[in-house]
Amino acid sequence: MECSSVLVETAGIHDNSVELTLEESPALISSFCNELDCMDGGGGYDIVNNQVIPTPGPPPNYRSHNASLQQSWEMNYQEAAIYLQEGENNDKFFTHPRNPKALAAYLFAHNHLFYMMELLTGVLLMVLSLCEAPAVPSLRLDVYVHATLELLALVMVAFELCMKLRWLGFHTFIRHKRTMVKTCVLLLQFVEAIVVLIRQTSHLRVTRALRPIFLVDCRYCGAVRRNLRQIFQSLPPFIDILLLLLFFMVIFAILGFCLFSPNTSDPYFNTLENSIVSLFVLVTTANFPDVMMPAYSRNRWSCVFFIVYLSIELYFIMNLLLAVVFDTFNGVEKMKFKSLLLHKRSAIDHAFQLLVSRQRPMGVSLKQFDGLMRFYRPRMSSRDRFLTYKALNTAGAPMLSLDDFYKFYEVIGLKWKARRSGEHWFDDLPHTTFLIFKGINLLVKSKAFQYTMYVVVAVNGVWILVETYMLNSGFSWSRMVPWSYIVFLTIYGVEVLLKLTGLGPLAYFSSGWNLFDFSVTVFAFLGLITLAFDMEPFYFIVVLRPLQLLRLFKIKQRYRNVLDTMFELFPRMASLGLTLIIFYYSFAIVGMEFFADVVYPNCCNTSTVADSYRQINVTIGNRTVLDEGYYYLNNFNNILSSFVTLFELTVVNNWYITMEGVTSMTTHWSRLYFMTFYIVTMVVMTIIVAFILDAFVFRMNYSRKNKEPLLDPEDENGIVFEAEVSRDEALATLELYKKTCPGLSSLNSLQGVLLAMDRSGSSSLVYLGRRSRTKSDLSMKMYEEEIQEWYAEYSRENLPQSDRSLVERELDIPPPCPERES
Amino acid sequence: MECSSVLVETAGIHDNSVELTLEESPALISSFCNELDCMDGGGGYDIVNNQVIPTPGPPPNYRSHNASLQQSWEMNYQEAAIYLQEGENNDKFFTHPRNPKALAAYLFAHNHLFYMMELLTGVLLMVLSLCEAPAVPSLRLDVYVHATLELLALVMVAFELCMKLRWLGFHTFIRHKRTMVKTCVLLLQFVEAIVVLIRQTSHLRVTRALRPIFLVDCRYCGAVRRNLRQIFQSLPPFIDILLLLLFFMVIFAILGFCLFSPNTSDPYFNTLENSIVSLFVLVTTANFPDVMMPAYSRNRWSCVFFIVYLSIELYFIMNLLLAVVFDTFNGVEKMKFKSLLLHKRSAIDHAFQLLVSRQRPMGVSLKQFDGLMRFYRPRMSSRDRFLTYKALNTAGAPMLSLDDFYKFYEVIGLKWKARRSGEHWFDDLPHTTFLIFKGINLLVKSKAFQYTMYVVVAVNGVWILVETYMLNSGFSWSRMVPWSYIVFLTIYGVEVLLKLTGLGPLAYFSSGWNLFDFSVTVFAFLGLITLAFDMEPFYFIVVLRPLQLLRLFKIKQRYRNVLDTMFELFPRMASLGLTLIIFYYSFAIVGMEFFADVVYPNCCNTSTVADSYRQINVTIGNRTVLDEGYYYLNNFNNILSSFVTLFELTVVNNWYITMEGVTSMTTHWSRLYFMTFYIVTMVVMTIIVAFILDAFVFRMNYSRKNKEPLLDPEDENGIVFEAEVSRDEALATLELYKKTCPGLSSLNSLQGVLLAMDRSGSSSLVYLGRRSRTKSDLSMKMYEEEIQEWYAEYSRENLPQSDRSLVERELDIPPPCPERES
Repeated sequence: MECSSVLVETAGIHDNSVELTLEESPALISSFCNELDCMDGGGGYDIVNNQVIPTPGPPPNYRSHNASLQQSWEMNYQEAAIYLQEGENNDKFFTHPRNPKALAAYLFAHNHLFYMMELLTGVLLMVLSLCEAPAVPSLRLDVYVHATLELLALVMVAFELCMKLRWLGFHTFIRHKRTMVKTCVLLLQFVEAIVVLIRQTSHLRVTRALRPIFLVDCRYCGAVRRNLRQIFQSLPPFIDILLLLLFFMVIFAILGFCLFSPNTSDPYFNTLENSIVSLFVLVTTANFPDVMMPAYSRNRWSCVFFIVYLSIELYFIMNLLLAVVFDTFNGVEKMKFKSLLLHKRSAIDHAFQLLVSRQRPMGVSLKQFDGLMRFYRPRMSSRDRFLTYKALNTAGAPMLSLDDFYKFYEVIGLKWKARRSGEHWFDDLPHTTFLIFKGINLLVKSKAFQYTMYVVVAVNGVWILVETYMLNSGFSWSRMVPWSYIVFLTIYGVEVLLKLTGLGPLAYFSSGWNLFDFSVTVFAFLGLITLAFDMEPFYFIVVLRPLQLLRLFKIKQRYRNVLDTMFELFPRMASLGLTLIIFYYSFAIVGMEFFADVVYPNCCNTSTVADSYRQINVTIGNRTVLDEGYYYLNNFNNILSSFVTLFELTVVNNWYITMEGVTSMTTHWSRLYFMTFYIVTMVVMTIIVAFILDAFVFRMNYSRKNKEPLLDPEDENGIVFEAEVSRDEALATLELYKKTCPGLSSLNSLQGVLLAMDRSGSSSLVYLGRRSRTKSDLSMKMYEEEIQEWYAEYSRENLPQSDRSLVERELDIPPPCPERES
Repeated sequence: MECSSVLVETAGIHDNSVELTLEESPALISSFCNELDCMDGGGGYDIVNNQVIPTPGPPPNYRSHNASLQQSWEMNYQEAAIYLQEGENNDKFFTHPRNPKALAAYLFAHNHLFYMMELLTGVLLMVLSLCEAPAVPSLRLDVYVHATLELLALVMVAFELCMKLRWLGFHTFIRHKRTMVKTCVLLLQFVEAIVVLIRQTSHLRVTRALRPIFLVDCRYCGAVRRNLRQIFQSLPPFIDILLLLLFFMVIFAILGFCLFSPNTSDPYFNTLENSIVSLFVLVTTANFPDVMMPAYSRNRWSCVFFIVYLSIELYFIMNLLLAVVFDTFNGVEKMKFKSLLLHKRSAIDHAFQLLVSRQRPMGVSLKQFDGLMRFYRPRMSSRDRFLTYKALNTAGAPMLSLDDFYKFYEVIGLKWKARRSGEHWFDDLPHTTFLIFKGINLLVKSKAFQYTMYVVVAVNGVWILVETYMLNSGFSWSRMVPWSYIVFLTIYGVEVLLKLTGLGPLAYFSSGWNLFDFSVTVFAFLGLITLAFDMEPFYFIVVLRPLQLLRLFKIKQRYRNVLDTMFELFPRMASLGLTLIIFYYSFAIVGMEFFADVVYPNCCNTSTVADSYRQINVTIGNRTVLDEGYYYLNNFNNILSSFVTLFELTVVNNWYITMEGVTSMTTHWSRLYFMTFYIVTMVVMTIIVAFILDAFVFRMNYSRKNKEPLLDPEDENGIVFEAEVSRDEALATLELYKKTCPGLSSLNSLQGVLLAMDRSGSSSLVYLGRRSRTKSDLSMKMYEEEIQEWYAEYSRENLPQSDRSLVERELDIPPPCPERES
């Protein structure tokens, strides 16, 4: 991601020169021609000789044209960086920029500023519905204000699309489905927004439900797009089983109608339609046992009908649904991993071809690697660039072979640090201070200290429970600060201080658990301050106190695994949540357009659920009570209420009350909305369950296969690479870097390495590169054998027609030695 | 299973002689001594030389003592048959009978009559609760009647236990946990039954909840025992996650109490106890969104609390629970399969040692195999015994090697049939008739016919739907026979007849789908007759008509797979259902003892759920309506009502209404009962979900691994073995059989083989043995590689100290050649 920003910087500063250079670059132009001929994306570029080379003079020769060669190399670095970036982002290669204009547009459209603009536009469009027609009261805006805002946002989107058109070219543009859909939706929204502005009033705008498309198309929402793709891939088997479910539902509806309709006091089966609706709701269990009761009170054996129905539908077919989705999901996950892996490999292949030269067709030298990295990770320090090279170059050969280079994505995210000579941060302090800190260090690392803290936390937990139990209801928190609160808080504060000093801030904050302790303790202190200053709105902070108890779960291995896996899953969970919210948004818009303001207190008197909407004094026997039905709150009056209502529908319980209420105030067809929503959330929820199941079973299998605990208690258990730098190497590298880009201040870091060597007096330093372990690393290990097969298959398919040819032509180098292909 | 019946028959008829023979049998006695020294069950019998041989004379010598040798062989056959039976039933070898008395008791206790008695006693004890104190009205019995019945049943159980004691011996008996628990429960129940008889009134008898133990201990309930074991094995991880769930619940309860208790109109959070209960119920979603509404109507942002809570508890931890159970379940299934497999192998090892002789230490001859089979499967015909031998003897060698013999359990269930020379059942008919039948055969096998029938079924489905939709409610089925019913029924009838004649009854009924078609059609005819004769109680048969539509699902492969897997799973599902019923029973008894007759119409006025129990005229505004709350029907007044109530609690929706109703009429502690029940059913239900998930994912993986469709559409896809019998072989075998047991009429079947050869004029006949594929066969193929490892491990552990020694001593044969052990 960071690559693009430098790309744009270069493009911005030397705009003309870049364009000039580009026109001279044979690599891009030839790849442009190639792309035109083979647009299927990915490897296997054929050269059609007739159409190819519009080179503006004799081919660049290595010895004579040194300056132009240097330019040509820079171009190659840039293109290689783009390939690697495409590999990282899983962009298809057929969107690779293919001429200077395209490159300029590509560079413009691939940087964080542009991405942020995309994202903000998308969010703005979605947020607009807070202020439109059935608006949240406090955020209501005039029609011309929000319509103008909308038009503005749409113009932004149009601008983004123009950039894309310029970059992709017309042909690729219209063949890129997602972009075409976006364009169509954009046109529609444009027309509608203008109509709204002219009429100065909002019409029925169900198409607003399509707005999330602009958000989903953002670069930053790639995870959401992947989720959506996964959901669509799981749909066919899901729909098959759903049909089975519906089939049994209809059969039982007919049976139920025949059996129970003679009973006039049974409102659930009096018509075939009611019968079907009742059984649909019964699958969600929301109307059980009420739906059974009228029949059951007539004849006790009628419960058999319901038991059989629920056993088949709820306990069998619904689980089958989960099984089928789980199975599909498993397969899809593996396939996704495979295609991502091979795409990355292909990107590395492309980049490698651009980095080798005629003299050295088998390897990438440090100079070329550094050239690449200056485009790919512009903000990376020279030291880290060098260390990354060292990490790749495991054999210690003068060049990186292709096999070395294949590990590119594994090492690129490493954070480098010199291995400390001493263990503790206080090693350099005077002796007395050192002893004190050493004492604290030993203390906080001791089991006794840990378990004492566990005991304190446990006592605190029991204390809170008892204390809360003793309280009368209706007290006010802000009036009292229990002394126990202060005592425990002091203990926690002391613990945090001891640990901070004993371990050093760096070591302390590198553990997630410590971070958690720290933040909860800080929050608790904030709460105390809140109490002291009587700041009402923040009193809930006090209430977060019991979270401290979560530390108790550190004791047992299984909980640590569960919680660690939970943290690992969090990004995926968040993206699934976002996907769900996008579905919510669309349904909320449709709901608002059709059902805004249809339910209110004491409505729905004709329906069977009137009770839940009633707000009236009721006389029962001789008492009068206020019978308050709150369900009118579950409405579609604005987008926030709609979201809450939809969440309630997702939880399913009592959802039919909302459905029946709305239906009784509108038409029968409203049920379609609610049932569709149920099925859609069922799909998403099943996917979520399948995802959690898959992730956990995967983790457990992994740890079983590798016979290691999932995560060590204190250790981060990330990926660690080691690189040793000798004095001579560092000096040579510094010289090289000075030659290639003399004016850069980034060399400081490399000079820092030399300084560190001087200080410690040793002739070499060992650096450790760390990063946290990702799902992809786990998968690599799990599918070890299969991966080899995939690679073999991949090289059979791709390498014989490798795009080495591009580079060959450019630098006029001979064809590669055969063993490279193996 | 069938083995035992002959064992008993022999024991019955020749009781004295058997005992005599037994006393002379060194095998049993030596094994008895061995068992005393090494009671850990399974392989590895050491011989302690001092204690061993109380042989009543010189060891039997092969040549001189022919008669006693014959007897000795018979004993060996019998013991080998017992070993094989123990292997089949997964009985531990330390319960192997070890002396003549034990054998007699063993034979007495191992036959279907005895098993049936066990089962009936167990069922009787459970069924008694229908008639005891809070009895089903129509089945109420006097105290002395049901107490006497109970005493009788308990005496039966005591008798069974005595038999077991006699067979196991005192030492093994008291070390057998299940039996000891049973004994204790028996004593308790005995005392209680006598107390009831004396007092002539039932006291609080919660111990009746332990009655299912007698049922579970039955031989026929092995599957239920296995399920229970699996449930208990899945418990530890389940409980861990459950604690996490409860922990968050308590934290949120404290938070909720602090946040919402100031709101006096919120009954859900006014005390800490209510807060915990509300959040417990919220995990089941049963009180959502009602629980949120009072807080939500005050402050819209309070919904965040509930959304966060549900996201953590319901959508994360509950799924985690499933993931953990699923994972454990997977492992347990595999371990179970492994131990069953190795146990069977061990049983075969034991049996093999008893069947080989000094002259032929490496193999089992047909004569010995036949001797074994006469004990193991007494009802098997001589032909099938011979064919089974042929199926085992794949190499065509004169003897069965141990490796051959290991396949024993694979071939023992085969049903043998001569391979038909022709294809059709009507091949032998005269030419004209043949042509007619051939035509019908071609017709019913044609795609056109199949799809025509699908179209007819679909039209029928639509017809039924439209017809039902057109009907007014409140009609009476028995008054009208729609003509469409007759038309469609005729078509189905003709189809069944055509298929029956075209395929022949045998081929027709061998397909499950055809069987289904047939029975549905027959039911529909019965329905028509019912209508014609106006038999009211059977009118529901008519209503089953739509089931015919299920045939439509034959069209798509996925549905066929699903439905076939469903049928395959059915036995396991049934045993899981039975397990659930056993839990239900215990809870129902406890519920009846404490909550019988506590709820009734218009009770529970002090609770928040009074509405659901109210049955009174209510004035709303100016209308008066009958507000009928049916929940008083969900009671524990007798065992049938209790079962229905418990099923409603299992479905979970609105379960808190029942809980609150009962609680308001009794004490707070009643909630414990309901919450415990919820957690127990949650465990069982999670296991069921895990089971279905596992089974389906297994099936799908299996079919993916073996690259074959799960089940061919029409073919049975069972296990098929082939055995070719030549004339000479058959004659030789007949001679052999005549010699070994001359008087047996079972030789007819072998003579039938010869007759069939004469008729067809060929010198050999090919027989096919078929059986349906079981889960075990699938597992064998799935775990192919692992099985080899298990076997290797098993032989390393067991064979060096193999119990060959028993036979060696008996027949005085030299130690086995070394290659046998490999």
